[in-house]
Amino acid sequence: MHSDRRVTFYHAPRSRSAGVRILVEELGAEHDLVALDLQAGQQREPAYLAINPMGKVPALRHGDALITEQAAVYLYLAELYPEHGLVPPVGDALRGPFLRWMVFYGSCFEPAVVDRALKRDSGGRSMSPYGDYASVMQALIQQLTPGPWLLGERFTVADVLWGSALGWMQAFKLLPESPEIRRYVARFGERPAVRRAAALDEALIAARKPG
Amino acid sequence: MHSDRRVTFYHAPRSRSAGVRILVEELGAEHDLVALDLQAGQQREPAYLAINPMGKVPALRHGDALITEQAAVYLYLAELYPEHGLVPPVGDALRGPFLRWMVFYGSCFEPAVVDRALKRDSGGRSMSPYGDYASVMQALIQQLTPGPWLLGERFTVADVLWGSALGWMQAFKLLPESPEIRRYVARFGERPAVRRAAALDEALIAARKPG
Repeated sequence: MHSDRRVTFYHAPRSRSAGVRILVEELGAEHDLVALDLQAGQQREPAYLAINPMGKVPALRHGDALITEQAAVYLYLAELYPEHGLVPPVGDALRGPFLRWMVFYGSCFEPAVVDRALKRDSGGRSMSPYGDYASVMQALIQQLTPGPWLLGERFTVADVLWGSALGWMQAFKLLPESPEIRRYVARFGERPAVRRAAALDEALIAARKPG
Repeated sequence: MHSDRRVTFYHAPRSRSAGVRILVEELGAEHDLVALDLQAGQQREPAYLAINPMGKVPALRHGDALITEQAAVYLYLAELYPEHGLVPPVGDALRGPFLRWMVFYGSCFEPAVVDRALKRDSGGRSMSPYGDYASVMQALIQQLTPGPWLLGERFTVADVLWGSALGWMQAFKLLPESPEIRRYVARFGERPAVRRAAALDEALIAARKPG
């Protein structure tokens, strides 16, 4: 019998959903995995577009509810397992900064990194969500400086989002050289859940290769 | 004496913070208003960059906590006033779709509208957060079709975010012609809080004009 917390997790290795697999491991979350092959274009097939019309992973299904968009997926899943304490609750002094950094990732940080990678400008101050790349990076580095985690002593689901994203961005040389970012990514990478998720994803990729 | 829910609200009329002024009116939220003159560049002055390094409104200060980024500001403020029921709580069947649509606004919808306004492409499927403009608009229209609100019968803080944003985007002709969007914007515009916020902002603008 399934727990009422059991979710279906739509995932692809080496994609924006890799961090959610880490969160699943952090929480020991009960789930059914649906692994999409992005190279084969499964995220653009009608079956998946019915889950997420944007054709992106991650997505969750929980009962009749569909949840897409990275920050929403991380929040929703972490809220299902309050005993892990990865979400500062309403009334906690960290609640505001926590929400700020959860939203900042998708609405400022990733757009700044993508514009930079595509060598296009930000669109100008009045239109751009983020202003300029340098200010975005400076804000992040300042936030990481006290450490050890994004919000200080407390490890939250925001670290799973940021730790995993900064890891792949650093690997693709999309970030400025910064000891604060490098230390944070390394610290995150030492978590057992990160290693378990990486091993599971490598096994998934290996199983796909023609024998 | 101030209530412990009293916040400082950093605002500018006719900007991304106009919807937060509506939320303040919906909630009757106790606040101190800091009105920035964007034409005079006050959002780029060091005093404000210390609040939000991106140089954008809205922002909130609540005690020592600073909250920026639209979805975070809306969520945080609505959570301070649970008696208004604008946030479906954890465990509610609407929680997942609610989080999805709160995050979707800043990470997909606004980027799609801005790219379109700037006549630049989305950056390609693997980089772009949203895929393509048409799919984004189709997803929105489909979501609005049952009505009367974004999540159906229940009015939530997601409607304050979406209702106010779609209003200005429609006024600037950034959206496709759609009876669903038009009806939704009109319905939202009839709320007393929307009219009160508009009157307050007009008074603020009038007070600035040289007599």
